[in-house]
Amino acid sequence: MHQRSLFFITSDYKLSEFLYFDLTFFCDSFESVSPEILKEIRGYQDVADKIIDEVLNGKFKGHTYDDLADFVDNFGNRIAGSVALENAIDYLGDRMRDIGFDNVHTENVTSPKWVRGFEEAVMLKPWRKTISVLGLAMSISTPEEGITGEVIVVQDFEDLHARVRDATNKILVFNAPFDNPENAIKYRQRGAIEGAKINASAVLVRSYATYSLATPHTGLMFYDGDVQKIPAGEISIEDAELLYRLQKKGQKPIVHIKLRSNFESDIITRNTIGDMVGTTKPHEFVLISGHADSYDVGQGALDDGYGVIVSIKAVELLKALKLKPKRTIRTILWTAEEVGEVPFGAAQYLEKHLEELRNNYTMFLESDSGIHNVHGLIFNGTAQAQCIMQEVLQLLAPINATKLYSHFPRLKTDIVPLMQATGVSGALPATDADKYFWAHHSAADTMTFLNPRDLDICLAMCSVLSYVLGDISIMLPRAVVL
Amino acid sequence: MHQRSLFFITSDYKLSEFLYFDLTFFCDSFESVSPEILKEIRGYQDVADKIIDEVLNGKFKGHTYDDLADFVDNFGNRIAGSVALENAIDYLGDRMRDIGFDNVHTENVTSPKWVRGFEEAVMLKPWRKTISVLGLAMSISTPEEGITGEVIVVQDFEDLHARVRDATNKILVFNAPFDNPENAIKYRQRGAIEGAKINASAVLVRSYATYSLATPHTGLMFYDGDVQKIPAGEISIEDAELLYRLQKKGQKPIVHIKLRSNFESDIITRNTIGDMVGTTKPHEFVLISGHADSYDVGQGALDDGYGVIVSIKAVELLKALKLKPKRTIRTILWTAEEVGEVPFGAAQYLEKHLEELRNNYTMFLESDSGIHNVHGLIFNGTAQAQCIMQEVLQLLAPINATKLYSHFPRLKTDIVPLMQATGVSGALPATDADKYFWAHHSAADTMTFLNPRDLDICLAMCSVLSYVLGDISIMLPRAVVL
Repeated sequence: MHQRSLFFITSDYKLSEFLYFDLTFFCDSFESVSPEILKEIRGYQDVADKIIDEVLNGKFKGHTYDDLADFVDNFGNRIAGSVALENAIDYLGDRMRDIGFDNVHTENVTSPKWVRGFEEAVMLKPWRKTISVLGLAMSISTPEEGITGEVIVVQDFEDLHARVRDATNKILVFNAPFDNPENAIKYRQRGAIEGAKINASAVLVRSYATYSLATPHTGLMFYDGDVQKIPAGEISIEDAELLYRLQKKGQKPIVHIKLRSNFESDIITRNTIGDMVGTTKPHEFVLISGHADSYDVGQGALDDGYGVIVSIKAVELLKALKLKPKRTIRTILWTAEEVGEVPFGAAQYLEKHLEELRNNYTMFLESDSGIHNVHGLIFNGTAQAQCIMQEVLQLLAPINATKLYSHFPRLKTDIVPLMQATGVSGALPATDADKYFWAHHSAADTMTFLNPRDLDICLAMCSVLSYVLGDISIMLPRAVVL
Repeated sequence: MHQRSLFFITSDYKLSEFLYFDLTFFCDSFESVSPEILKEIRGYQDVADKIIDEVLNGKFKGHTYDDLADFVDNFGNRIAGSVALENAIDYLGDRMRDIGFDNVHTENVTSPKWVRGFEEAVMLKPWRKTISVLGLAMSISTPEEGITGEVIVVQDFEDLHARVRDATNKILVFNAPFDNPENAIKYRQRGAIEGAKINASAVLVRSYATYSLATPHTGLMFYDGDVQKIPAGEISIEDAELLYRLQKKGQKPIVHIKLRSNFESDIITRNTIGDMVGTTKPHEFVLISGHADSYDVGQGALDDGYGVIVSIKAVELLKALKLKPKRTIRTILWTAEEVGEVPFGAAQYLEKHLEELRNNYTMFLESDSGIHNVHGLIFNGTAQAQCIMQEVLQLLAPINATKLYSHFPRLKTDIVPLMQATGVSGALPATDADKYFWAHHSAADTMTFLNPRDLDICLAMCSVLSYVLGDISIMLPRAVVL
């Protein structure tokens, strides 16, 4: 098969709509899937229907929600380095053994450990108000007594550079609206670097979120070796907008913050790996995955408890239906996804298993892209792989999950470094993306935010895709990695 | 006019739909509005169009949002007894004088004062988790060291009485879902009474809210002289559901709470009254109103900052358009609505002005029913008054606000005691009611929760209604008070 490279990770991601192109014309005209393959794909409709029926009407109905609740209610949130995460990893491995996965084992992963301490923020002037705040992961602490200062609020880096030369003894606030995920995240990630360059004492960033009920979010931030490290936190959208409005009216709000934390490097955590060994092609793989770690607020149900539970239950479901694909379905529950510039679990797995990942995998599937209204797949692969996948997705017509989005967001998920290093196709469930950013990395990431139906649809999709890609005669064509 | 009494405050309120009946058939068949009145009403279409155009396209466009932000950003929240509330009342009176209201003055109101102190809640077992909590207004404090105990979670009073005989040394948690506003509020109001009867140490009530992003709400609770007073707070929906799920799995969660507060009775606060004196019937009135006080979290923008600003700006708008109705439009900005079993400001105004309220008012309008998607009026009056109002509402067709809901919710708003004592018709804007309960009495009640368009629509509606009812030849027929 030729390898026309459409492999791309672009930056013009649009919220909620990603970049949806109907590929029908393109595929029919230029990359038509051969009649034999088309026939083979359509031959899986009965199996797909059976899987879907078992989830929507059979004994798996609603169980993914219950299993996810059992999991996250047992341990709470699971940041890298926590006892809760390692207990959760043990539990997930036990669940996989109970279900009858083959070769269940863990592989060690090195990660830093950041532990949130006491945190508070208060606006002292023009009137007293508690500010909803969460320190950002990897931020240094404020001094024990905290930091008090006038705030300077800017909308974005452009506004900052145009208006502010010096922020000595001031707290810099970024009130950047969430225009799109790839742009808005810059303020969380690089706010402290830009703040330090103009001598700000600390930075507070409007939460990286699409909606808020006074809920602050957290996430990862970076320093730059060349500039001073200053503490950084996220405040609620409401508080960022309030500070901005007050400043516009000529007020000079005074804010006090205390953000305490501890940092350790190089703790050991574990990826969990288990297989459903293929019947005739055991050395070819479909990867289904999610990450076991979470942030240290909420329950990590959305990000990404559901991803690990769905990746386990997809195999449980195939086993229950006695469906055995030719290739091996490999479930990997990544660890330490949240706290690193690269996802540590996936990156370290890649180092050890590069050749196998490059040569023996047909697709990397990960569930870490939200769960509300799964209606298709965000897919990255060659033009030909896209056209094949578009046909495969038609098997999901009974659950209205047939849309293939050919733009893969430039965000950190475990499979991105794998895709980049190998050229193997990668996929995430396509969901109502803006809903994901209502709750991720916040106290609102709980079971209450989810509903059983969405989880059932996601399970049905992941099960059908892993079975069909694991069983069909061809591997998806890989892209050439330049 | 005859007084067929359809005056009712029923209890079968349905969220988001209230009880909407299309009255067209009823009014055409039984209560037809006379051709003269109908003609008169329809004659106001030009004026209504002019008002609507000025708000949606003219110089008032977006100004209600800006004025509301100026107001709430200046003072923050405004609970009865606070300096912020009294400063806010001064500010509102000054605004009314600037606009040229007549007879602007305040009348004293006696109110209790409840001041929130330090509050925290933590789940200690089976794992440690911060619980989002707000003490309820008028709750007593926990002891200085707090209260620690096993929780017992019940769904509702029925579940409580069926399952729990004794809760000595335990914290009782009500996890009642929000089925409808009039039922769900019982747990907040009477939870502590029912808890005390079985010797609970304290009660925590699932927030009286229709949606949550880990946001606790607050509100008023009651004690009963016959039973012990125990402390009461609201926790987030997420935390209530978590505790419930844990208990269902056989866990016995241990929770620590500290809810500190102070209580004073009999402080003085003030209603603010101002008139746009009628040209030929100055002693007949249309009331437009909202309450200036709020809870002590968030900004009180939704509840009820918008109500006071709209009630001022309606007159500002009529003045700008040089529209002078025959009757007096009286704007009253109530105080101390939130903290009493009756709304103190309105109830004390009623005591002093009963005769005038009974005899001289055509309608009491209040804006305190949410602001999202104003699309009509919740109206309470005689059958004939309803039929007249349905015709008047047709003037609002350009803003799609023509629906008349003939069920008035059994909830505390200032005009309810006035209506009950006088039989005069009362009205609230009809909105997407469930959205109101996303934010009310919580940190999420801020400018961020609102948008300019909704406020413009509300202003247009209140201005048209107060002008037309202030100018039309008839007063709305009053109900007989039994």
